[in-house]
Amino acid sequence: MAYWQTRGLRGSTLEELINYTNEKYRDKGLGLIQKIPTPIKPIKIDQKSRHISLAYFEQKSTVDYIGVVQGISICFDAKETTKELLPLCNIHEHQMMFMEDFEKQGGIAFILVYFSKYNEYYYLPYTFIKDYWDKAKLGGRKSIPYKDMNPQYQIATKDGVYLHFLEQLQYYLSTLDE
Amino acid sequence: MAYWQTRGLRGSTLEELINYTNEKYRDKGLGLIQKIPTPIKPIKIDQKSRHISLAYFEQKSTVDYIGVVQGISICFDAKETTKELLPLCNIHEHQMMFMEDFEKQGGIAFILVYFSKYNEYYYLPYTFIKDYWDKAKLGGRKSIPYKDMNPQYQIATKDGVYLHFLEQLQYYLSTLDE
Ligand SMILES: [Mg+2]
Ligand SMILES: [Mg+2]
Repeated sequence: MAYWQTRGLRGSTLEELINYTNEKYRDKGLGLIQKIPTPIKPIKIDQKSRHISLAYFEQKSTVDYIGVVQGISICFDAKETTKELLPLCNIHEHQMMFMEDFEKQGGIAFILVYFSKYNEYYYLPYTFIKDYWDKAKLGGRKSIPYKDMNPQYQIATKDGVYLHFLEQLQYYLSTLDE
Repeated sequence: MAYWQTRGLRGSTLEELINYTNEKYRDKGLGLIQKIPTPIKPIKIDQKSRHISLAYFEQKSTVDYIGVVQGISICFDAKETTKELLPLCNIHEHQMMFMEDFEKQGGIAFILVYFSKYNEYYYLPYTFIKDYWDKAKLGGRKSIPYKDMNPQYQIATKDGVYLHFLEQLQYYLSTLDE
């Protein structure tokens, strides 16, 4: 029985669930995905304890995760919303630019969104997000509504993997072939 | 005339030179490479100033850089030595394991080493390093000597890019075809 079923992962943050998932993927040889830590600049370090007594947050990083999955470069950001929609202001311009450039290099970019109200997780392809983003710039709605979620992109717990998003990645890749 | 020629990049750290290089690559559409910051866990944050007054270094990260270059996943670590050799103890076991797993996923892993005594930079393919690593485990020498550097892997300043390591990546890929 999997760890979260016996111990319960209910109290875990989205980031922790993704980290568990990535560890599983690494163990199973399915992919190697690295968390990009928030950039913090340490200023004063206590030499004995190695504690940091002064530090600054540096300019916001790009996306939360970058990795390689069976020859495919992927990057994604994790987002969480309590509402019936994902506000586009949760996605930063520089993140959009990073995902754009990442895809131009032949990688696959996406957002993993958690709708906590429904306790559901979805894989949002970059091109899907960009559509809303571009329309918002032209005066359209400033969010992606829950009702627009495609059931084929819902992420499930499967094969001992808590957020088995590689299934949705695979589905996304299959749509490109069409 | 390039920035470092007019302003001088002599005082720059290896990390800064690589960051400049990666910015150039991004601007030119040649690649998108992300610095992985050192993971630091903030404990106390002053709400007004957003300064961090207590933080810890978390377990050491994996490698310094991950990215995608024209469809190829790459990861690398930057190392610097003042000696006539690169001590293998500068490369951590978990970094070797990460590079190993990265290559298993179809990515390319390497180390960018700076021999400050000679003011020379080299691209060391993962398989090249692993050779020394494995021999050291069996009682062999505990370092990679400067004299073993292959001139074809020397990184030069070229086309307005300070450390144009994509040339050595390309050369490395060509050796795989043989
Ligand atoms: Mg996020
Ligand atoms: Mg390093």
